[in-house]
Amino acid sequence: TFSRGIQTVTLIPGDGIGPEISTAVMKIFEAAKAPIQWEERNVTAIKGPGGKWMIPPEAKESMDKHKIGLKGPLKTPIAAGHPSMNLLLRKTFDLYANVRPCVSIEGYKTPYTDVDLVTIRENTEGEYSGIEHVIVDGVVQSIKLITEEASRRIAEYAFEYARNNQRTSVTAVHKANIMRMSDGLFLRKCREVAENFKDVKFTEMYLDTVCLNMVQDPSQFDVLVMPNLYGDILSDLCAGLIGGLGVTPSGNIGANGVAIFESVHGTAPDIAGKDMANPTALLLSAVMMLRHMGLHGHAKKIETACYDTIRDKKVLTKDLGGNSKCSEFTADICRRVQDMD
Amino acid sequence: TFSRGIQTVTLIPGDGIGPEISTAVMKIFEAAKAPIQWEERNVTAIKGPGGKWMIPPEAKESMDKHKIGLKGPLKTPIAAGHPSMNLLLRKTFDLYANVRPCVSIEGYKTPYTDVDLVTIRENTEGEYSGIEHVIVDGVVQSIKLITEEASRRIAEYAFEYARNNQRTSVTAVHKANIMRMSDGLFLRKCREVAENFKDVKFTEMYLDTVCLNMVQDPSQFDVLVMPNLYGDILSDLCAGLIGGLGVTPSGNIGANGVAIFESVHGTAPDIAGKDMANPTALLLSAVMMLRHMGLHGHAKKIETACYDTIRDKKVLTKDLGGNSKCSEFTADICRRVQDMD
Ligand SMILES: CC(C)[C@H](C(=O)O)[C@@H](O)C(=O)O
Ligand SMILES: CC(C)[C@H](C(=O)O)[C@@H](O)C(=O)O
Repeated sequence: TFSRGIQTVTLIPGDGIGPEISTAVMKIFEAAKAPIQWEERNVTAIKGPGGKWMIPPEAKESMDKHKIGLKGPLKTPIAAGHPSMNLLLRKTFDLYANVRPCVSIEGYKTPYTDVDLVTIRENTEGEYSGIEHVIVDGVVQSIKLITEEASRRIAEYAFEYARNNQRTSVTAVHKANIMRMSDGLFLRKCREVAENFKDVKFTEMYLDTVCLNMVQDPSQFDVLVMPNLYGDILSDLCAGLIGGLGVTPSGNIGANGVAIFESVHGTAPDIAGKDMANPTALLLSAVMMLRHMGLHGHAKKIETACYDTIRDKKVLTKDLGGNSKCSEFTADICRRVQDMD
Repeated sequence: TFSRGIQTVTLIPGDGIGPEISTAVMKIFEAAKAPIQWEERNVTAIKGPGGKWMIPPEAKESMDKHKIGLKGPLKTPIAAGHPSMNLLLRKTFDLYANVRPCVSIEGYKTPYTDVDLVTIRENTEGEYSGIEHVIVDGVVQSIKLITEEASRRIAEYAFEYARNNQRTSVTAVHKANIMRMSDGLFLRKCREVAENFKDVKFTEMYLDTVCLNMVQDPSQFDVLVMPNLYGDILSDLCAGLIGGLGVTPSGNIGANGVAIFESVHGTAPDIAGKDMANPTALLLSAVMMLRHMGLHGHAKKIETACYDTIRDKKVLTKDLGGNSKCSEFTADICRRVQDMD
């Protein structure tokens, strides 16, 4: 499986606790002998020609070359007009699918024990079109843009994902009873694509009904696919069910294998630099990345070690209910990874 | 408190289990000697002059006269072009605020025990504008419309509600980081109105963050106010936390005291007419109605009896985990109400 030799990944450590948790991931990858080398890049937005915000060229070139990135949290820009780096990255590399597996973690108690689902969010259009107008004073419109192409593309991604990951059903989440044309188009494309995946069960459900059923019995869901904003909401809701953004991995997938995996929690400036951060979300995102690269053996090993450390409860960071430092938590995972050899 | 004498309320029993649960509510109101008389009306949509869908005139007149309605579930129209009756009612009577108190019910087990919040949803505009276009083949836009007036109106309603119901905080729920102009306008109005309610704490939170925090710790929330679609989602999510639509009341409030209270669950055609339905959601909606009418004593009495029956667990309908008929559940509540005299 490692015949491809060492592959290079662009590492964007990010702000706040980003560097610490990136170091943790690198250590664990080293312990697991994952055939990855890192090319570190910074992605503070810069103004390009014509005043357009852009990713710094060194980061762009690195991603263009290696196609795969791992990214820590980035500060939310405060200046008006300054773009969200997350949105800019999605746009720059046309990362059209946001994928978030939410799986209950043994030993980390939440009100739910049987969550095992994946949200797949269309990442490029919908309510995120950025097109807004003042019609007359006091009346504003925002435009939600849904295209046939993006809808088909995300639906295909969802069904492929289900098929390749031994999942049995895809649920399209929509409000086509209200937005008959836009969500209607999205839904129609899902139905059409479903025709080509007879081995995967297809269902459709209103977003409000999904939310209601989700908090009552999340075990009924498998793969969920939806337009941008609904995905923003549902992916966070589902993360909440298994313990929050600190333990939930995320991947942004584009065409031709391009992908950026990232932790979606904040930069936690209050604990930055204090060796207190929890690297789980970034580590599990890196595990998704390994699977994306076909490195299933290394992925399994690291994932198992991480879950074992959490289940064991002896070496946990504060947010996970323990007293250990980030470096201690990391060392415990490294030890387990090495013990597996 | 009853000096106003008997007041008339328009009763829309609705479809499926609607008539049974309406009968249950009427019986309990009678047992509680609530000074209400009912004027029953049917609201199947009809085509008016010019082919416009409308509420039957007898229903419209009844509501115009009495201003207060109680409504059971209505069949979702199947015919294309046929409007949702719920939307038509909101529009016809300009019911701009949808109010849903979600309070954990003792004895009815869900993963949460400490929910006590109210969602207040703008009910007239936003994503429900109904304005959609095909731009070019395969590209559709839906327009989300946010106005200063509707935003201010719903913000004022939320703060008044908080003040009048001994609630201490209002959270504005938005995605103004993405829809800067539309959600930005909504948020600005909330902030402005907050200035006039210094006794109520004001906070703002992204919708995705609310969803995440909601499933992790709903006890942190009090009154939440938001645009139409976000309210659609959050109100169902919150209903899920306390046991679903079968136990969650809802009120649609307009100007000058006009209001329709309703159960928001479905018509349950499979059990219709079998004396198996659970009237709790409609009953608790009727309790909201009594409070709206200033009949706090009767409201408290009926609400207490209903919660006592549920907590007691001896006489419960099937969906609540028991074996009793709708009529038995109703009789148990009636008995308790009478015992309070
Ligand atoms: C940071 C923000 C722009 C973003 C979004 O709304 O998509 C975030 O909530 C997410 O889910 O990645
Ligand atoms: C029936 C439907 C039109 C409605 C909505 O989307 O508003 C429902 O979900 C609700 O919350 O009342």
